[in-house]
Amino acid sequence: MTVRMLVDGVASAQVSALDRGLAYGDGLFESIRFVGASAPLWSRHMQRLAEGCVRLRIPAPDPAQLWREAQEVSRGMPASVLRITVTRGAGERGYRPPAVPQPTRLVAAFAPPPVAAEAYVHGVRMRVCDIRLAEQPLLAGIKHLNRLEQVLARAEWDDPAIAEGVLLDSHGRVISATMANLFAVVDGELLTPALDRCGVAGVARAEVLAACPQARVGELTLAALRGAGEVFLSSSVRGILPVRSLDDRDYGPGATTRRLQQHWRDLGFSMEQDG
Amino acid sequence: MTVRMLVDGVASAQVSALDRGLAYGDGLFESIRFVGASAPLWSRHMQRLAEGCVRLRIPAPDPAQLWREAQEVSRGMPASVLRITVTRGAGERGYRPPAVPQPTRLVAAFAPPPVAAEAYVHGVRMRVCDIRLAEQPLLAGIKHLNRLEQVLARAEWDDPAIAEGVLLDSHGRVISATMANLFAVVDGELLTPALDRCGVAGVARAEVLAACPQARVGELTLAALRGAGEVFLSSSVRGILPVRSLDDRDYGPGATTRRLQQHWRDLGFSMEQDG
Repeated sequence: MTVRMLVDGVASAQVSALDRGLAYGDGLFESIRFVGASAPLWSRHMQRLAEGCVRLRIPAPDPAQLWREAQEVSRGMPASVLRITVTRGAGERGYRPPAVPQPTRLVAAFAPPPVAAEAYVHGVRMRVCDIRLAEQPLLAGIKHLNRLEQVLARAEWDDPAIAEGVLLDSHGRVISATMANLFAVVDGELLTPALDRCGVAGVARAEVLAACPQARVGELTLAALRGAGEVFLSSSVRGILPVRSLDDRDYGPGATTRRLQQHWRDLGFSMEQDG
Repeated sequence: MTVRMLVDGVASAQVSALDRGLAYGDGLFESIRFVGASAPLWSRHMQRLAEGCVRLRIPAPDPAQLWREAQEVSRGMPASVLRITVTRGAGERGYRPPAVPQPTRLVAAFAPPPVAAEAYVHGVRMRVCDIRLAEQPLLAGIKHLNRLEQVLARAEWDDPAIAEGVLLDSHGRVISATMANLFAVVDGELLTPALDRCGVAGVARAEVLAACPQARVGELTLAALRGAGEVFLSSSVRGILPVRSLDDRDYGPGATTRRLQQHWRDLGFSMEQDG
């Protein structure tokens, strides 16, 4: 695994063992797709990171500095995924946040995950996860470092033919996939779940919502998802992926999915070639 | 802050920046009170750690090795708190756990937190936290690294006269304090909340339950807590602490609290002197 990384601006592969990001998951991250030196959704990532910092009361990093560091670690890579992690920094033992935190800033460049070009054409297969997401409004929406639910969800299946899992909340409402947000066309209406009680409000989801002002954010039942005419996933890393099946229910890629894939290409992404 | 630390058995103050403990909070920890070279609750800590490893499917570390490392980092300290952290180790980007994880093992010795001797005699003051714990049965009870709820809870107050906060679940049931488990004598019965949907099942709580076979694990309402005749906290780090007040409700230390403080001394702890 070759990873180029800066820790607080210095080339390093290590962080303090006393960092609160490790001790308590006390921090945030962003996974940002780069095409060469360009990141079409950069400003949305910076906005979500800033919102997360406000929510957790962590001093926000300077986006201009992050941009320079992102350029430095991704230099020469035709395509990359930048992971930016911001933690509350090192601290004494104990949950209490330090009065004056010194946040830690990690910027690392990874090769994009392999996604078969075929997946963008015909779609991916999904299953419904057994785990139910816990509801915590104070943490919902932001991309914090407490991700054990996603780890457990992704550990539920091994079958490489299954690309993603649908996550439900404790009331059985559809929330998202494990690594992506989820959209469905139900009775002709584009719908994505509300994320005010659990889930991560993806940057790609925000881009879809901006591109489709007619889309509705609301409740999506599993029955409605199964009955949808068209289902797709949005991911800042993978882009727009049609869903071809959910367990034994088959879908065909639809017009909205195709239009958003075109929108992604118009933004400058080329997942199908780079993945 | 002077901390002696071993990372995978080697003296080090750093961990890989790609560790999944940092990336996702994908791991577990224990905070273990030592009196010199002895840790009266060691075997209970090892049991909980092993249970957490089973739950998260992380290969469990060897307790004999942890014991040797704990001895090494705490050597010469009359009193210490050992933090043992076990993560799923370094991994590729992405939630999916590696097929063959190489866990990371951190063993660090800290000075015990200062607790006024007076607190053991007269008790500590508490408040009720605003945050409500989310309910996730798959993670309840174990001491995993996803601790943002506790961080947010502990950040709710600054008043040094308040030592602890009561955490409720989304149904308003009492679960615990932010850093300790909670016991109440209600209508003459010793009661502590069930922790099968949220909360951490403390090692000190397990010791109290073993020492008081008549104690009941069940539902504790805030009204019942307010009306209790006696309330105390159990903590592997701080021992048995009487609660002298919850907001405007005052309690006196009772016979059960005093008996358990004596039990703690009988185990070999001497918090009042060491803290």
